[in-house]
Amino acid sequence: MDRIDEDMTAYLEKVVKEESERDHDGEMATTMEDIGKDEHELFGVGAVGTDATRCKAGDADEPFPIESVSKAIVLALALEDVGPEKVFSHVGEEPEGDPYHSIATLEEGKKGEPSNPMINAGAIAVTSLVKAADGEERFARIRDYMRTLADNPRIDYNHSMFEAEKKDLNRALFYYMRNHGVVEGSEEDKLVPYFKQTSLEMDCMDLARIAAVFANGGCAPGSDTRLISAQTVRIVLTLMFTTGMYQGSGKFSVEVGIPSKSGVSGAIMAVVPGRMGFGLIGPALDGCGNSIAGVRVLRKVVERWNLRVFG
Amino acid sequence: MDRIDEDMTAYLEKVVKEESERDHDGEMATTMEDIGKDEHELFGVGAVGTDATRCKAGDADEPFPIESVSKAIVLALALEDVGPEKVFSHVGEEPEGDPYHSIATLEEGKKGEPSNPMINAGAIAVTSLVKAADGEERFARIRDYMRTLADNPRIDYNHSMFEAEKKDLNRALFYYMRNHGVVEGSEEDKLVPYFKQTSLEMDCMDLARIAAVFANGGCAPGSDTRLISAQTVRIVLTLMFTTGMYQGSGKFSVEVGIPSKSGVSGAIMAVVPGRMGFGLIGPALDGCGNSIAGVRVLRKVVERWNLRVFG
Amino acid sequence: MDRIDEDMTAYLEKVVKEESERDHDGEMATTMEDIGKDEHELFGVGAVGTDATRCKAGDADEPFPIESVSKAIVLALALEDVGPEKVFSHVGEEPEGDPYHSIATLEEGKKGEPSNPMINAGAIAVTSLVKAADGEERFARIRDYMRTLADNPRIDYNHSMFEAEKKDLNRALFYYMRNHGVVEGSEEDKLVPYFKQTSLEMDCMDLARIAAVFANGGCAPGSDTRLISAQTVRIVLTLMFTTGMYQGSGKFSVEVGIPSKSGVSGAIMAVVPGRMGFGLIGPALDGCGNSIAGVRVLRKVVERWNLRVFG
Amino acid sequence: MDRIDEDMTAYLEKVVKEESERDHDGEMATTMEDIGKDEHELFGVGAVGTDATRCKAGDADEPFPIESVSKAIVLALALEDVGPEKVFSHVGEEPEGDPYHSIATLEEGKKGEPSNPMINAGAIAVTSLVKAADGEERFARIRDYMRTLADNPRIDYNHSMFEAEKKDLNRALFYYMRNHGVVEGSEEDKLVPYFKQTSLEMDCMDLARIAAVFANGGCAPGSDTRLISAQTVRIVLTLMFTTGMYQGSGKFSVEVGIPSKSGVSGAIMAVVPGRMGFGLIGPALDGCGNSIAGVRVLRKVVERWNLRVFG
Repeated sequence: MDRIDEDMTAYLEKVVKEESERDHDGEMATTMEDIGKDEHELFGVGAVGTDATRCKAGDADEPFPIESVSKAIVLALALEDVGPEKVFSHVGEEPEGDPYHSIATLEEGKKGEPSNPMINAGAIAVTSLVKAADGEERFARIRDYMRTLADNPRIDYNHSMFEAEKKDLNRALFYYMRNHGVVEGSEEDKLVPYFKQTSLEMDCMDLARIAAVFANGGCAPGSDTRLISAQTVRIVLTLMFTTGMYQGSGKFSVEVGIPSKSGVSGAIMAVVPGRMGFGLIGPALDGCGNSIAGVRVLRKVVERWNLRVFG
Repeated sequence: MDRIDEDMTAYLEKVVKEESERDHDGEMATTMEDIGKDEHELFGVGAVGTDATRCKAGDADEPFPIESVSKAIVLALALEDVGPEKVFSHVGEEPEGDPYHSIATLEEGKKGEPSNPMINAGAIAVTSLVKAADGEERFARIRDYMRTLADNPRIDYNHSMFEAEKKDLNRALFYYMRNHGVVEGSEEDKLVPYFKQTSLEMDCMDLARIAAVFANGGCAPGSDTRLISAQTVRIVLTLMFTTGMYQGSGKFSVEVGIPSKSGVSGAIMAVVPGRMGFGLIGPALDGCGNSIAGVRVLRKVVERWNLRVFG
Repeated sequence: MDRIDEDMTAYLEKVVKEESERDHDGEMATTMEDIGKDEHELFGVGAVGTDATRCKAGDADEPFPIESVSKAIVLALALEDVGPEKVFSHVGEEPEGDPYHSIATLEEGKKGEPSNPMINAGAIAVTSLVKAADGEERFARIRDYMRTLADNPRIDYNHSMFEAEKKDLNRALFYYMRNHGVVEGSEEDKLVPYFKQTSLEMDCMDLARIAAVFANGGCAPGSDTRLISAQTVRIVLTLMFTTGMYQGSGKFSVEVGIPSKSGVSGAIMAVVPGRMGFGLIGPALDGCGNSIAGVRVLRKVVERWNLRVFG
Repeated sequence: MDRIDEDMTAYLEKVVKEESERDHDGEMATTMEDIGKDEHELFGVGAVGTDATRCKAGDADEPFPIESVSKAIVLALALEDVGPEKVFSHVGEEPEGDPYHSIATLEEGKKGEPSNPMINAGAIAVTSLVKAADGEERFARIRDYMRTLADNPRIDYNHSMFEAEKKDLNRALFYYMRNHGVVEGSEEDKLVPYFKQTSLEMDCMDLARIAAVFANGGCAPGSDTRLISAQTVRIVLTLMFTTGMYQGSGKFSVEVGIPSKSGVSGAIMAVVPGRMGFGLIGPALDGCGNSIAGVRVLRKVVERWNLRVFG
């Protein structure tokens, strides 16, 4: 299975149907509730092959905030902007046992340095490294990068989602890191772009297209146009594999086994290197913050088509 | 020894002389260094009896920022303002092993609630409970309370010290607690008064006078004029005894054994219930943040005059 | 109130009656359940004045395992045997936030050294310092010390309680400390005496008599016969005050305010320095592991007779 | 590069020569020092292709204790014996931030359950699951499994190494887990086999041969003889990738990027799925406990031949 064909299309429709009929009694993130969206109902999956073939099933065209999925993509931008040496002098590369929003972990570690770019503190530090004169330009560059990777110029952030973001906890992380020199500058310039990036809205096909760029080694699907350097692709995929699914990353890598990044909106972006990318939405979350239905669909698909990294 | 007589005066002069000749190779807090003060040189002690007798030795009339000593006094004001039930619904009463500036401890405990009023987070929460319409009034009430207890209307805060305060770490504590509903309101109204109170300047006699009010059960020394309720005195003395000397509180209570509160400026306020109060300054600090010379003087004095709470 | 008179007797009977009628829905320690004892029903209090006057109410003559109350008494024996300098080179003097059975706290602290003698690890280390050729002699000396302090030669340990002790957790603490050189020797010589001491059975009057020795500065009540040195009394009372009631020590010291030590059997030993000692049993436990009824009785008694250390 | 040819042989000789001339000022594990071996001098690498081609450079034929490398191999045996469901009901699959010998992590997690099979506690739990009537049989099965995978019937454990193992720390882990029901049975039956397996001695070619079995999907190199199931291979490789290099696992996976397991003897076993396996020794260790020279050699080799999992 190296391209999206009729068999894959039929299979995705089948598993989405199967999972739709299950009762997923997980939780929905409070920010999602705050904006009153009926996204609890959304359930969809999209796939894009490295050859640009496509397919989808369920609500694959409905937009949703990508939340923490943005962490993987903005990491790529920061790596392209300032290089891995600088990025990893502000944030570590190590998985860790504490929750993604933990502040204790900053104190226990090295002088306020976050363990990795996939926890909130790490992502805030990474976002602050994106080159820009101020917060507006910083966010604009992030948004434009997403638009380019997704090949969709209409991508923008959800204003009510941005307002509803739990800002105080992330402010605490920001000032704790600023105290230790891990980040510099103002809330407006460095933290606000982070809140906005988590409120960016995409649909499953957008996420699948970005995933397909990673799957294609950094080139646009079906072409030789390089959008991300090979080195950046490798680093991001590695960190998605080891730390992309919150505190369920280890279990997910053993059981599903492909580089993926989830968000508390129920979004998942998943990459099968050399083959294809997936975008999923299914807002009922498990205890780790991952989409219950999304993880189930991915597990079935990788088993059916033998797509796991380690066989 | 229930009053300050000639013997006590002579003894204090003797121990200050002895300790002055020692080489105290501790550290000085960075905020002290920032303001360029030569307070590293200060060393003094003052005592005030419950009968208003007084004595002093060394640099007892030189002002210094009281830093964390303010935590004990503002706790008294908050208890008087809103009562112990309300205070202890925002902050705990338990000693703990983590450093006074720890943020990890907030995450490990009960929903962002600080363990006790003597750590930074706890003191920020306590200060926020002092009744006032805004931050200016809140600080004015704190300053006036200090003036009344010390019987010194000239007490005020040191502006360059206030500017030099390490604000980002305490901002992180503030926003972490605000995220959990432990504090409410703005930095300006709730956190700025905390920074100002730690920058309040007193001399040893001011601190000794405040200590003597606590020693006298809440009444002005040598009179029946009640300044603090008996209940508040009891609560504050208990917490000073169990948690007043940072992470050296346990050792200090075993070895010196009287309720005391220290600050990283090298200040100590110490209370001998029913007898007298002490104010000390000696900026070289031990590993816990307590004045090396101050602790030595207190140990000698309590041994000489048998002043320990538990004999 | 400096002696046990008819008023105190009547008052204790009154509060025991009041509390007996309450419904205490706390938990009972599993070891207590294991031995099938109906101690859930026991409720009593005994008091002994420093002048050897006595009174009691409720089930004050029924024996129960003293559990962690032994920690305070064996600390006294170890201090008498090897002196405070040696004791406190193996165990700290600092209160801490972690549970009494925590092993994490050993790793976070100084090279396997327990924070204080009132947590399990600290008490195991302290017991190992009691002078003896082997485990049998070590326990025999501990038992004889208890007999002397309680003036009751029939005190011994409960064999089924000893068998039911949760040994693996304390074994883990023992080997972790042995790895770091905090304890030396075999389980048989050093750990078994600890299990036996926690299984020692006393009644309320035994505990009150031991408490009265501490209240009397180390002398037998009503006499000048010294049983414990003044220094040891001071150290033990200080640590009981700061760390004697598990994770409820801070709240207890603020609200009840006298040096006390509790055990998960529902036992409490409480000392009013210079005045009297109390022994209590009431097996329903609060969330910290302290007797609900015992704490209530003590709070009422100290309020009624104004017995708090800090007024 | 899918097989070991002359180019690879020449390249390995070159990098071993380069690294031999560097000054590696890392530390050597104390157990290695205890046995007085001059293994600090050893430095070698061996490679075995999935087609059974071989090459080596440096001290590739000198035996050394494999230490924690055994964790990955015994995990395979336990998975084959009782299946992943049972194994992962005793130990987690999640990476974590604490050191491999941490006991605090057991308390913070789920009821004494270790986070993953690559930390000491996890490996002790995994070893206890290997099917056997007693400790002798358990170790014999482990040793025989190693002999089969390495195709070397002379592999055995080093008796003085076994004696020198730091047993008390692992005893503490064992009893802590037994207290929580994570392991059962006696030290002799369950813990002694763990000490013996870490003392097993192999040379680089033995390790490379075992790695080649994993690289070959579980079949003997150059044949269709299945030695490990495909499912077990996938699970072990995933956990080696996410947690195999102690607290340096994240950095290693980003920078070197192939499933590997290290030991504090300086041993490393590394797998290039579908292509080849490596065995390395170089006792100078970095701060995480990984062979400095070994990691350098691997980094050069994967770069030169483009062997990384994620490109």
